[in-house]
Amino acid sequence: MKRSRDESLEQFPVAAGSGLPERRRFLRRGLILAGATSAADTLAQNPGDLPWLHVPGQPFSTYGQPSPYERYTARRISSNRAVAGNGVSFTPLEELEGTVTPNGLHFERHHNGVPQIDPERHRLTVHGRVRQPLSFDMKSLLRYPMRSQMLFIECGGNSNAGWHAEPIQRPVGSVHGLVSCAEWTGVPLSILLDEAGVDDSASWVIAEGADAGAMNMSIPLAKMRDDCMVALYQNGERLRPENGYPMRLIVPGWEGVLHVKWLQRLELADQPVMSRNETSKYTELQPSGKARQFTFTMDCKSLITSPSHGQALSRSGVHQVSGLAWSGHGRIARVEVSVDGGMTWADAVLQSPAQPRCFTRFRMPWRWDGRPALLKSRATDEAGHVQPERVALLAERGRAGYFHYNAIVAWAVDDDGLVSHSY
Amino acid sequence: MKRSRDESLEQFPVAAGSGLPERRRFLRRGLILAGATSAADTLAQNPGDLPWLHVPGQPFSTYGQPSPYERYTARRISSNRAVAGNGVSFTPLEELEGTVTPNGLHFERHHNGVPQIDPERHRLTVHGRVRQPLSFDMKSLLRYPMRSQMLFIECGGNSNAGWHAEPIQRPVGSVHGLVSCAEWTGVPLSILLDEAGVDDSASWVIAEGADAGAMNMSIPLAKMRDDCMVALYQNGERLRPENGYPMRLIVPGWEGVLHVKWLQRLELADQPVMSRNETSKYTELQPSGKARQFTFTMDCKSLITSPSHGQALSRSGVHQVSGLAWSGHGRIARVEVSVDGGMTWADAVLQSPAQPRCFTRFRMPWRWDGRPALLKSRATDEAGHVQPERVALLAERGRAGYFHYNAIVAWAVDDDGLVSHSY
Repeated sequence: MKRSRDESLEQFPVAAGSGLPERRRFLRRGLILAGATSAADTLAQNPGDLPWLHVPGQPFSTYGQPSPYERYTARRISSNRAVAGNGVSFTPLEELEGTVTPNGLHFERHHNGVPQIDPERHRLTVHGRVRQPLSFDMKSLLRYPMRSQMLFIECGGNSNAGWHAEPIQRPVGSVHGLVSCAEWTGVPLSILLDEAGVDDSASWVIAEGADAGAMNMSIPLAKMRDDCMVALYQNGERLRPENGYPMRLIVPGWEGVLHVKWLQRLELADQPVMSRNETSKYTELQPSGKARQFTFTMDCKSLITSPSHGQALSRSGVHQVSGLAWSGHGRIARVEVSVDGGMTWADAVLQSPAQPRCFTRFRMPWRWDGRPALLKSRATDEAGHVQPERVALLAERGRAGYFHYNAIVAWAVDDDGLVSHSY
Repeated sequence: MKRSRDESLEQFPVAAGSGLPERRRFLRRGLILAGATSAADTLAQNPGDLPWLHVPGQPFSTYGQPSPYERYTARRISSNRAVAGNGVSFTPLEELEGTVTPNGLHFERHHNGVPQIDPERHRLTVHGRVRQPLSFDMKSLLRYPMRSQMLFIECGGNSNAGWHAEPIQRPVGSVHGLVSCAEWTGVPLSILLDEAGVDDSASWVIAEGADAGAMNMSIPLAKMRDDCMVALYQNGERLRPENGYPMRLIVPGWEGVLHVKWLQRLELADQPVMSRNETSKYTELQPSGKARQFTFTMDCKSLITSPSHGQALSRSGVHQVSGLAWSGHGRIARVEVSVDGGMTWADAVLQSPAQPRCFTRFRMPWRWDGRPALLKSRATDEAGHVQPERVALLAERGRAGYFHYNAIVAWAVDDDGLVSHSY
């Protein structure tokens, strides 16, 4: 028999509107009766029928794969019909929990496909305004001191459907999934720059990849010295080819396009190279008539991954609201959740430790009363940036906006429990 | 041309014996000249020959895989010839960096193979000394509040070759690789126990898996209430079949065998069930004549993963010493490294944030002078436990020792730079 919902209400004092709990009390007592059934029901289903209880399982594997029952947890590919290797693939955020993105599901953005590089033949060359141009092979890089850091990477064009006049009706990952988070391990760039001896006249570093497009970008020298690294490992193992194998540039908190994959060249210069991706792309005209360029830092942002578009609340009663927050400015300090479209807000519980420029998972139980609701999340980072409402972002950036969309995301729940994207 | 080693020595004041640097100074200045070559050498190799610079790369993928050049980074399988599904597979620790173990390389210990479970048909039943026996399917569990935590899991039998009279000559992962670390996300057990209403007479919980062996173990109720969880996600995605899909028990810091995979039953009881794996196995006779049983907590431990057995230092000069430390008692507080067999020690740099019951990566640069050396690491946890020397562990536990081997691991480097296991 289903447990009575009345009983659960006693356990569940309401603070904010429409069924959000008072946080301190919730943390003290988790009891929410979310639809467990009597054990008798299960025994009635005769679990003796389950084949895996009767036959030995499959043997060991040298490298494991997901369950066949999870085969639809996959990246959604959107690429150029004319140039197959030019496009993106989205991380299915709605299928994931916690903060780590598995390497096989990290989002991709390629301009000319994924090169299959022989690490024995790959070199990283540091040249230009340096005392001694140098070249590093894998073996020499592996002897240098390394650093590991959990960091998000977000494409500057992530969530750009938000600029459309009408809310796009797609799963959260297929709209906002050009962001992922992993533990990156590599050699701090400051060490390699010291090896070559940077000339005082240098102020920019031009990074180039070893793909057939020779993708290149300009990054200020000060940022490179501060916290950038040449990553060799992602979530413990060597990088995957689609994430830059054998080495990629990591530029913490800044646009994904700067994290140059298949890194083969770092040129010290006194000005940016003005490449395609910092002139005709990744720039935008403002209402003022001025263009935004070199908009490096990814802003404070959050979104609810569950419940989210395309999902359905099976029944009224208690559900977990779960989502992700991140900011290129540092740590996430606070995430608020609203289920009444922003009239009232309640503080979500943040997964700890909250690390700088890293996904922070937030969670909040919600007692759905079966009536229509509008869910929103609002993040604040340690630098004081607060995620803006969409109308405010549009007023600031105008209809010409295309990159760096970080407005509050709203999910509408109808009285059947169906969830859709809303403004 | 190779950079002169003399130049590097100036940058590298020595504190501890045999080439370990003075830490503060090292952290301020990373310059170590570890064998970069002149860029001219690289250009002479004519990188124009590299095919991936000339042809478009491969298309996008829905679920990525490691580079073919990394195919030897794999779990090493050691299973029972008579029963293929009974054995272990080791995580190749020597191939990994950072602290996360990728899901495909997490170690395995199975008793009757890996069941292929249909999550729609799987149930978790909580019964025994409870007010209301309950059954949870995936859909209901997904509505409960969840928690995420980075945690190591270590088999109680890990490193047991250390009890052998002679040091075993195998890669570090093939001896000590029955330990891995991942971000686990699931429902705190305290919540599910409250749902069923635990009887005051209950003091133990008997956990059972849905493999054909119906593996079962007894765990004190207090631990279950304190910090255990039913995990549904591993490193962001659903568990892999070999790690308990669709759900496994997580018992932070305790023996791996208690982390019951394919969890289908939790029985509240007033005493342990005395199953095979808590009587004939995972127990050991002490010199005193008494047997150790229910030795739950995995002790403070560390090992150097690079350089380690089977590797070779390509040349004298600076190399990075890198390794892992962990403790079931909490956070790692300190790791010391010695290159002279323990005569002198220097503090390694710990990757932050150091999380409780989680891998902590430690690193230390070392200037190898080309002469024989003996490398060791020694971990201390926040509770004050210090990793013992092997002789001390043997004196305490005797030759009958088999489980919970946590002694200091020593690597001998000969004058050719070859690394082997040593006592």
